[in-house]
Amino acid sequence: MPKTITVGLIGFGTIGTGVVKTLQMNGELITKRLGAEIRLKKIADLDIETDRGVKVDPSILTTNAEEILNDPEIDVIIELMGGYHPAREFILKGIENGKSIVTANKALMAKHGEEIFEAAEAKGVSIGFEASVGGAIPVIRTIKEDFAANEILSIFGIVNGTANYILSKMSDQGEDFQDALKEAQRLGFAEADPTFDIEGHDSAHKIALLATLAFGTRVPIDDVYMEGISKITQDDIHFAKQFGYRIKLLAIAKQCGDSLDIRVHPTMISVDNPISNINGATNAIEILGNAMETSMLVGEGAGSLPTASAVVGDVIEISRNILTGGQNRVPARSFLKENIRTMPIKPMEEIESEYYLRFYVVDRPGVLSKISGILGNNNISIGSVIQKEQKENSGVPLVITTHTAMERNIRNALAEIDKLDIIKKETFYLRLEKEG
Amino acid sequence: MPKTITVGLIGFGTIGTGVVKTLQMNGELITKRLGAEIRLKKIADLDIETDRGVKVDPSILTTNAEEILNDPEIDVIIELMGGYHPAREFILKGIENGKSIVTANKALMAKHGEEIFEAAEAKGVSIGFEASVGGAIPVIRTIKEDFAANEILSIFGIVNGTANYILSKMSDQGEDFQDALKEAQRLGFAEADPTFDIEGHDSAHKIALLATLAFGTRVPIDDVYMEGISKITQDDIHFAKQFGYRIKLLAIAKQCGDSLDIRVHPTMISVDNPISNINGATNAIEILGNAMETSMLVGEGAGSLPTASAVVGDVIEISRNILTGGQNRVPARSFLKENIRTMPIKPMEEIESEYYLRFYVVDRPGVLSKISGILGNNNISIGSVIQKEQKENSGVPLVITTHTAMERNIRNALAEIDKLDIIKKETFYLRLEKEG
Repeated sequence: MPKTITVGLIGFGTIGTGVVKTLQMNGELITKRLGAEIRLKKIADLDIETDRGVKVDPSILTTNAEEILNDPEIDVIIELMGGYHPAREFILKGIENGKSIVTANKALMAKHGEEIFEAAEAKGVSIGFEASVGGAIPVIRTIKEDFAANEILSIFGIVNGTANYILSKMSDQGEDFQDALKEAQRLGFAEADPTFDIEGHDSAHKIALLATLAFGTRVPIDDVYMEGISKITQDDIHFAKQFGYRIKLLAIAKQCGDSLDIRVHPTMISVDNPISNINGATNAIEILGNAMETSMLVGEGAGSLPTASAVVGDVIEISRNILTGGQNRVPARSFLKENIRTMPIKPMEEIESEYYLRFYVVDRPGVLSKISGILGNNNISIGSVIQKEQKENSGVPLVITTHTAMERNIRNALAEIDKLDIIKKETFYLRLEKEG
Repeated sequence: MPKTITVGLIGFGTIGTGVVKTLQMNGELITKRLGAEIRLKKIADLDIETDRGVKVDPSILTTNAEEILNDPEIDVIIELMGGYHPAREFILKGIENGKSIVTANKALMAKHGEEIFEAAEAKGVSIGFEASVGGAIPVIRTIKEDFAANEILSIFGIVNGTANYILSKMSDQGEDFQDALKEAQRLGFAEADPTFDIEGHDSAHKIALLATLAFGTRVPIDDVYMEGISKITQDDIHFAKQFGYRIKLLAIAKQCGDSLDIRVHPTMISVDNPISNINGATNAIEILGNAMETSMLVGEGAGSLPTASAVVGDVIEISRNILTGGQNRVPARSFLKENIRTMPIKPMEEIESEYYLRFYVVDRPGVLSKISGILGNNNISIGSVIQKEQKENSGVPLVITTHTAMERNIRNALAEIDKLDIIKKETFYLRLEKEG
């Protein structure tokens, strides 16, 4: 007698359709691995009329999610509706009814994860959220299981495909930010309102989730520093290349003693680091552990089938737990509940990094000496200097990279420098990462 | 009362020492994740005198592996002695005594895996072998679990750090094969007898294991085609660059209908493919699935602590299974025993690929026409041609890349061409991979 795991899907959009397709395409194969059939019993969505390009028995469609939440036959609920409400309520209700949950909802998990994890722990059900970070990239299970023998020291991630697509276009095709954004919107890589992706919110949600798992800490999502990519110009792209760097929107989490250095910002990464070569909508996450050294995971960070691959992977994992009775095999947050701590987030002003400073100055002798004097007074030592030959209306670009300095000192120095009459326009700076 | 998982280690060499260090360094952290202590009760090695640079209570050392195999308290045995005998007998005895096994022994698992897997399945114990392929790279668990929703279509791996180190040296520093090999030996990246690494045996073991898991098939290890890197010259490296390729020792496994295309050989890979940028002793494995698309895993493929990271990761995984009673949660070979099949291996002569052909010819008109005529007669169409200007004693290098052709046709054409008096030395060829 073949065993069956019964699943209900809430949210029949792009990813939901991918889940249905994946189960249809690979269901037989999955059964050969799992030893049980995954049966999709119900799909709930407000819109059950639109043709999604996938064949579904109409009798399994419903507009009422309660039919899934309250169905005693359903073992696992897949939540793919997105947003905070009513996704949160549906998930909590499902847990209360003894169902395991699979979700791709990073915003929800970053904001309400603790409540959801604790509810699942209390009820002894599983919560799978592999699809919430990095699409098909297996970063969540990898941190929780494969790398569990390591103290994890840092995570660097290109986790937003929209921003990476735009930066790649700017770098490879010499396009300005606005043109690259328009192209991305035309191709469906960016939303009509792209703020969430290009200003770093999405990356912040994802790195907060990864930091929770890697370091066993709560991360108040609103305290994660974010900086977007909209201020980056072709000059910056050009200078980065000259210095041997590429600019990527990087989500960073590092353990610094007892505090957590967590932030999202465009970063200049050395071309020697393979993560600098990850282009287009592809995502990559680099994890440094004290035994494994550096490991990098690369793959499709979004899209219907790649994200569905992670969703169905979670359903299979939970099915194995249900079939063998090991529901609490791995703690939802990687650490046992009693070992989750609250690490303070390092204030941005206290982080240390190397920096790229791009000035627009008047073309006059003594400019460099004035600027370098102020940098020196602020304990910032200079790594290299490039001055572009041709003049522009907005002044001559002058670029300085620094050795490791404290962010506060950089900000103070630039505030002072920007008051000088030799400065033609507000100075822009980026942080550099050499290591991985 | 804290729970304890009791472990015995057989083989106190480089990796064994790494395991002891990892448990000492991260034991407390592991307990916070696992909810149990991993206790190393015994270490067996023929040499228990040498100082390994790690502090161990002398009373846990023994020269008699039986003390571990027969200790009723021991839950998990870590086998790190390597080789076929007595590693095989020890593992089978351990299984018979109801112990789960963790091993890094790829040669043993590639040759005697089926026997060991079946013994473990029959006894209901777990067998962890994550460390046997790609060191710290979590490729085995990823194929078995994270990517379980996919039909896996192909695997491309740089899975031998020695060969990759040598090829990187040849490419980046213009060194000849012999010099690069000597340098690798001096730095400990290559053995005194490097055959196993540079001729592809090690890569063949690893790709055979991965193919078993990915495709659910038995792979008779002696039938895997192998070709090493010792014939590659600076001319080849140079031409590869001109065509926009890099040369890597690639382990390849593809599902071709009902047959398995599995082989190890130096391959020219387009620089647009991120795997071509993986240099030095680093390993990388690219997996293509029908839902996830391409995923690449990169990391340290060898070394004491990185390999130990995977070994201890397996111990943690098995401990979770023991603690929650889910010992048979995931089939050892990824597919249920009854679904393991025997796919025939595609004969090398029948594979299809693009090719790089490097001739040394006399400098005389009509040479290209003769060669291209024979290629055409063998159904091989030409992609591009480069002829090096300067003459050498051994003739003028002439390089041709082809469109997709059948290996048999290439071999036949070259056999015919090499008989011509315009050919100064045996023609060399490499296969090209454009996609991932």
